Amino acid sequence: MTSEELLKQYNDWKFRLSVYEMALSIIEIDKLTVAPVAGASYRDERTAFLAGEHFSIMTDEASLNVVKELKESAEDPDIRKEAETYYREIMKIVSIPKEDYVAFQRARDASYDAWVAAREADDYSIYEPHLKSMIEWSRKLYRYRDCNLPLYDQMLDDFEPGMNTAAYDRFFESIKEKLLPFIQKVIEAKPIDESFLYESCDTAKQKAWTKQILLPYLRFDKDWGFQNETEHPFTSWTCENDCRTTTRYFENNVTSSVFSTIHETGHAWYEHNISPKYDGTILSTGVSSGMHESQSRFCENYLGRSLPFWQANYRSLQETFPDVFENISLEQFYRAINASKRSLIRTEADELTYPIHILIRYEIEKGLFSGSISTEHLDETWNEIYQKYLGVHADRASDGILQDVHWSDASFGYFPTYALGSAFAAQFFHAMKQQMDVDAALRENRYIDCIYWLKDHIHQYGARYSADEIMVMATGEPFNPNYYLDYLIEKYSRLYSISL
Amino acid sequence: MTSEELLKQYNDWKFRLSVYEMALSIIEIDKLTVAPVAGASYRDERTAFLAGEHFSIMTDEASLNVVKELKESAEDPDIRKEAETYYREIMKIVSIPKEDYVAFQRARDASYDAWVAAREADDYSIYEPHLKSMIEWSRKLYRYRDCNLPLYDQMLDDFEPGMNTAAYDRFFESIKEKLLPFIQKVIEAKPIDESFLYESCDTAKQKAWTKQILLPYLRFDKDWGFQNETEHPFTSWTCENDCRTTTRYFENNVTSSVFSTIHETGHAWYEHNISPKYDGTILSTGVSSGMHESQSRFCENYLGRSLPFWQANYRSLQETFPDVFENISLEQFYRAINASKRSLIRTEADELTYPIHILIRYEIEKGLFSGSISTEHLDETWNEIYQKYLGVHADRASDGILQDVHWSDASFGYFPTYALGSAFAAQFFHAMKQQMDVDAALRENRYIDCIYWLKDHIHQYGARYSADEIMVMATGEPFNPNYYLDYLIEKYSRLYSISL
Repeated sequence: MTSEELLKQYNDWKFRLSVYEMALSIIEIDKLTVAPVAGASYRDERTAFLAGEHFSIMTDEASLNVVKELKESAEDPDIRKEAETYYREIMKIVSIPKEDYVAFQRARDASYDAWVAAREADDYSIYEPHLKSMIEWSRKLYRYRDCNLPLYDQMLDDFEPGMNTAAYDRFFESIKEKLLPFIQKVIEAKPIDESFLYESCDTAKQKAWTKQILLPYLRFDKDWGFQNETEHPFTSWTCENDCRTTTRYFENNVTSSVFSTIHETGHAWYEHNISPKYDGTILSTGVSSGMHESQSRFCENYLGRSLPFWQANYRSLQETFPDVFENISLEQFYRAINASKRSLIRTEADELTYPIHILIRYEIEKGLFSGSISTEHLDETWNEIYQKYLGVHADRASDGILQDVHWSDASFGYFPTYALGSAFAAQFFHAMKQQMDVDAALRENRYIDCIYWLKDHIHQYGARYSADEIMVMATGEPFNPNYYLDYLIEKYSRLYSISL
Repeated sequence: MTSEELLKQYNDWKFRLSVYEMALSIIEIDKLTVAPVAGASYRDERTAFLAGEHFSIMTDEASLNVVKELKESAEDPDIRKEAETYYREIMKIVSIPKEDYVAFQRARDASYDAWVAAREADDYSIYEPHLKSMIEWSRKLYRYRDCNLPLYDQMLDDFEPGMNTAAYDRFFESIKEKLLPFIQKVIEAKPIDESFLYESCDTAKQKAWTKQILLPYLRFDKDWGFQNETEHPFTSWTCENDCRTTTRYFENNVTSSVFSTIHETGHAWYEHNISPKYDGTILSTGVSSGMHESQSRFCENYLGRSLPFWQANYRSLQETFPDVFENISLEQFYRAINASKRSLIRTEADELTYPIHILIRYEIEKGLFSGSISTEHLDETWNEIYQKYLGVHADRASDGILQDVHWSDASFGYFPTYALGSAFAAQFFHAMKQQMDVDAALRENRYIDCIYWLKDHIHQYGARYSADEIMVMATGEPFNPNYYLDYLIEKYSRLYSISL
């Protein structure tokens, strides 16, 4: 084959892959947002077929040879990297029999449906057999891989290339060692009043404020992005100019949707800002889950929970809900949205205790795959571990084991990247502040300047460089979790007047 | 091949077709409701590929032989009918080269995008080249068919099997002959005051009323149906338990969304009520466009614009918008929602002048394909014909030529079925009233009883029987347009106190 023919075959193959990826992505967005539940089994069966077609294209032998050749011999380093990345992903699934792959997709859809039903009924037993099935499926599918690493290490590596149990153990050890005693001090300090955040705010007005004030401030543009509503907020995308996010509104928790909106649009900005030259290829996506979370949590916490952010936005919130906020000063509001407490819900947790929620999930995942924890009575196990680390107990399963969607679709190994991403973000924040006046940008309605910094240093590359490489390029040094620990301890010492 | 093998092949083939149909349907729903416009070209290119895959499966030679054999030799008459129907559809496209088919899909998506842009800019010239292209594409694609009928007759037959220009000419002649002079009398009669319908009604409250009162009254259930919002309301579906509708809200036209909601849920009920034994097959859809429109317009007009419907619903509307309706009696409201006038917008037209809007489109379509009308200055031609029949002139192209989506996706021959459907509905209404107390059902919150009648007599069959067969089964006689003309003249004589 001439190199021209080779490239043509390769491009055709990539295009076909991207077709099925787009279709599966839109069908999933539809399923998670608006699709009527009674039609789920009809759709799921057909979606599984499409996933099977994607699998067939991905693992097709002739194309595999093309990819193999290009990863070694392509002149363009972008194409070499692209082909390498495809090759790595193909190798993960190439030995799985297609029937198994399709059956897994179907089981996964059924598991998600069961999770939704279990939440509605607030009954873990509806979900338990499906969770068990997802674990068994994962074991089965990973067994086909030509890899000697322990199962959970493979899973961790899938979401965060290069990471494994040993590295996460070290990371979480430092969190346990430095944060747990500090959290104890915060708990013993004078509590910050945040009760007003839970007063009634009409959800229609919340929506209107989000649409008219918040999204424009974040520069989330409906030409390339759309925000919908779902029980569990998420972000999804088909190409640079098509990023979908969702949020949810609670009458008695007005800032919940605010921070989920800032968080999810952070994900969306990452995808939107990737160089269009990677569109339709495997490089046109965030490089790892940790890096993706670093961007969303950067926006949510490092920007969104800062005083300057609210110097720009608090007045309009006050005007929208005068009954609640009229007599609350900006400073009081800022302290309230950062108040730390022992809480049940991960997505609602403050920055300080957030990594503990992740630590808990990490320990459970490790236990589920080492066999020391069983899905049976996992709702109770969950509560025991929450009691141990955070001193809280979920009376309703939907506030405990059923709160997160991730395990329902077999995304084991994903959670730890949330804490890692928060830690990445601290290091980026440190670097950004040395190069620009972040506070002024937020205060002066130039949130976009922060986004441009992220685009220049992180987003544009997509998956062209590894997370490690991007970290060094953006901050001048390898990942160092101390930025994160220092940031949290400094911020919360100030908030709670704790002398170190 | 044994008959078992034959059936297995056939079922596999049907399943694969249904997979691509579902994917294309969901992608289209997404496109029409929420997908960000800047991502359109990326998505459209890939959607065209999927349409091409559907085409390949549909026209695959081996499968064609299976279908051919089954339509002749299957024991089960349902399967014979099914195979016959597939065969008819395959024959329509089998000779089209796949490149042409895919290029057409792409052109069609681009044409829709141009229509949206043209409406926004209120500028026909943006749309004109695409409309021209859709006509040229239609000519080109139909030329591949092995059919000697005139082009426009083929198009009419595609939407309404059995219909052609001669039959529609007769139908519209009777409308012209009987209705036009009657409309003249109505115009000269004392006008009905309907000005209050155009007073300001908060759209958020309209939405809430639709969700809390109207949709529950119509028994449109979110388990199997979802209502979204779009510029141009439509209904779409993937299976019996997945029907999507849309509506649009106007602050200064509160009943617009009400009647579009009743109309679109009428389509949705048809699809939902088709026997699940046809799910995933070509028989699991309304038998013709006219039959589909007969169901939506039945619900919208014969039920929704009746006095008993509003005996059940008017009070809650009054309570929602007291400023507007407090001093308007039920009788006044009923007369207002049926007021007849020369109007510009088809979807907002009253029942009496509605067929004239269709007649106009029918004459333009005939002219476009006979060559007597050109796309050039069609905005002006449009106005001339509107002037002639309805005495009105659209100052904005979006109130004229740009108001309908249909031609943008090459659905030529579709419009006439709207008038035909209205006429079908009159005959069904006549039959239904002889068998049940429709007024009591509507008044007593048993709208569903009317739906059950439609299900028993029409919906359940899907495309198992022809429109003609269903008409005879449901009403005891072949289609007779006099039911329609009599209904309109009787209703409007009463409303306008015209003695015949």
